Amino acid sequence: MEETTLLAGLVQERINDVLAQHREELAGLGSDAEALIDEAERFLSGGKRFRAQFAVLGFRSVRGLDLEVDAGRGEPTRDFTAALDAACALELFHAAALIHDDIIDRSDTRRGRPASHRVFAGAHSSGGWSGDAEHFGVSGAILLGDVLQSWADELMQSACASASSPAAAERARAHFNRMRSEVALGQYLDVLEEQQPTFAEHDLQLERSTRILVYKSAKYSVEAPLLIGASLAGADEAQEQAMSEFGLPIGVAFQLRDDQLGVFGDAEVTGKPAGDDLIEGKRTVLVTLARENLPATQRRIFDGMLGEQLDAGQVEMLQRTIRESGAVERVEEMITRNVERALASLAGAPVRHDASEALAQLADRAARRDF
Amino acid sequence: MEETTLLAGLVQERINDVLAQHREELAGLGSDAEALIDEAERFLSGGKRFRAQFAVLGFRSVRGLDLEVDAGRGEPTRDFTAALDAACALELFHAAALIHDDIIDRSDTRRGRPASHRVFAGAHSSGGWSGDAEHFGVSGAILLGDVLQSWADELMQSACASASSPAAAERARAHFNRMRSEVALGQYLDVLEEQQPTFAEHDLQLERSTRILVYKSAKYSVEAPLLIGASLAGADEAQEQAMSEFGLPIGVAFQLRDDQLGVFGDAEVTGKPAGDDLIEGKRTVLVTLARENLPATQRRIFDGMLGEQLDAGQVEMLQRTIRESGAVERVEEMITRNVERALASLAGAPVRHDASEALAQLADRAARRDF
Repeated sequence: MEETTLLAGLVQERINDVLAQHREELAGLGSDAEALIDEAERFLSGGKRFRAQFAVLGFRSVRGLDLEVDAGRGEPTRDFTAALDAACALELFHAAALIHDDIIDRSDTRRGRPASHRVFAGAHSSGGWSGDAEHFGVSGAILLGDVLQSWADELMQSACASASSPAAAERARAHFNRMRSEVALGQYLDVLEEQQPTFAEHDLQLERSTRILVYKSAKYSVEAPLLIGASLAGADEAQEQAMSEFGLPIGVAFQLRDDQLGVFGDAEVTGKPAGDDLIEGKRTVLVTLARENLPATQRRIFDGMLGEQLDAGQVEMLQRTIRESGAVERVEEMITRNVERALASLAGAPVRHDASEALAQLADRAARRDF
Repeated sequence: MEETTLLAGLVQERINDVLAQHREELAGLGSDAEALIDEAERFLSGGKRFRAQFAVLGFRSVRGLDLEVDAGRGEPTRDFTAALDAACALELFHAAALIHDDIIDRSDTRRGRPASHRVFAGAHSSGGWSGDAEHFGVSGAILLGDVLQSWADELMQSACASASSPAAAERARAHFNRMRSEVALGQYLDVLEEQQPTFAEHDLQLERSTRILVYKSAKYSVEAPLLIGASLAGADEAQEQAMSEFGLPIGVAFQLRDDQLGVFGDAEVTGKPAGDDLIEGKRTVLVTLARENLPATQRRIFDGMLGEQLDAGQVEMLQRTIRESGAVERVEEMITRNVERALASLAGAPVRHDASEALAQLADRAARRDF
């Protein structure tokens, strides 16, 4: 079986077990409370398991791990537990972040399915309850995100308990902790950016947009999972550095691709409305680069439309403007350059050979978002 | 110095240090992101430190700890670090919960000061930013709660690293984990309850209101902090049981007092509008007991007013109805009975003598909410 498919199955199985265990432990709260766990199960079924893949690859960069052999055994090995539980911790944490993110971004859909706050609001409406369905939806989703964050943390505790040494556990914890702080603050900067009445002067705006891309996405989606996996396996300083030198540019490429999809992506593929980033008014690197090349009048029109309730024709007009500005090519070049830099860093890196090959493959998929 | 005052000072100092350290570590995100840390500092200054007190008392129930002597030393002892960091972890976690709670309950004030979501909304308004100030407030407060939950967890990691043994750390972790899950689900039940168009039949309603009281408050505010402190100190099974037998009834008394204050409390003292629970339509044990004794017509009027935008006269009318129903006396009796049960459990409990005395004193203050 292809390893990514195998891992996706193992992750799903472990997450299901964990949720079933929580359901049992929390039975004292009665059946009404199970709605939170039901929604956790729904939200956590499927998904790309992108972070899980990178966590396991980080681990395998340092220590041999054959998922297929290990998964078949009766009692899982410590290494298997450490890698899989860290992978699942990242998936649970990510679910928590997305659920809160969807409230913040007022997104009604996620992966083509209703966002969690919409699911809770729907239960309110169809139950004929009193009060505000919308607000109940937000409340339920806040609490679900909170409890998933706790459960992610429990899985990380379990991963650390199986780390290759106490020092390895401590390093992995430190990476996990930093990741959590950085993504929350990065997310705050992202929200803050959308509230600014005007774009900043180009260089400053590009710096701000890049900072958000790095903290909210690149470090979070790729570098941190790799570092967590590698450190659990007992990575030394040089190995951790190799993870960063590979992971950060791949994370940047990953998010730049996301920016392109946020503007040009097919709703069928992204699970989000076409031109979603334009309607949300996200000041991505792509949008910032596009603006730079527009003549003053056109830029004013562009700025005025961004973040508004655009119809399909207006979305197409903005898409055309961005394409004609040359920004798409520039972003493609940046993606290519970042992937090349990452792949080059693998040459001679203190990383196990089979993992190095898998990293190169995953890098390519990350940059294409082929998951 | 009185120990509660001493501890409050130590907690504040440690929290300030922790926030300053996070500020430094996260400097790479730039000055805009510091707004989250600024608000964390504001929100975490002062407060009753109720949970911190119980955590330290739990610890002292099992192992001697002289805060005054230890605080004066150069290098803190392991015991001091374990107890203080667990106490601070509880305070940070509680702040995170309150910040999210205020969004959920649409509370504009907390301890007589603006709620966090109002602070972020205020920054939006006064900055003349674009978009919805209200929604930005909610977004900022969601993210602040998230990051504080992470930081609480980091402090708990630090506390566990100084626990009296690895087994003690594991027990403390288990209590902390269970507490987090139970309070989120209990909070969900509380929100769900407010959405129900009608009260349930009396016995069922009382059972539901009691379950919310137990999980959202009694276990969370008293029993869990005691158990976490005691287990960090290496409590055996009998000692943990003693913490529960004392802590749960005190937690119940604590919340029943809160219910009384939510209806009859002085806004100056509670920091919340008079009759806040009535306006929010909370189905507390007090309210449930009051309804039971009302004649059908009066009960219909009562139900119709609960949860509405009441003016001062209407609040007074509901207060009078509740008082005349005899529910206030019944709740007072319940408080007394619970405190007595808790105090009785201390006799012969495997708890250190000086801690037992301090527990009795704190029990009394908890039941009066004299903090």
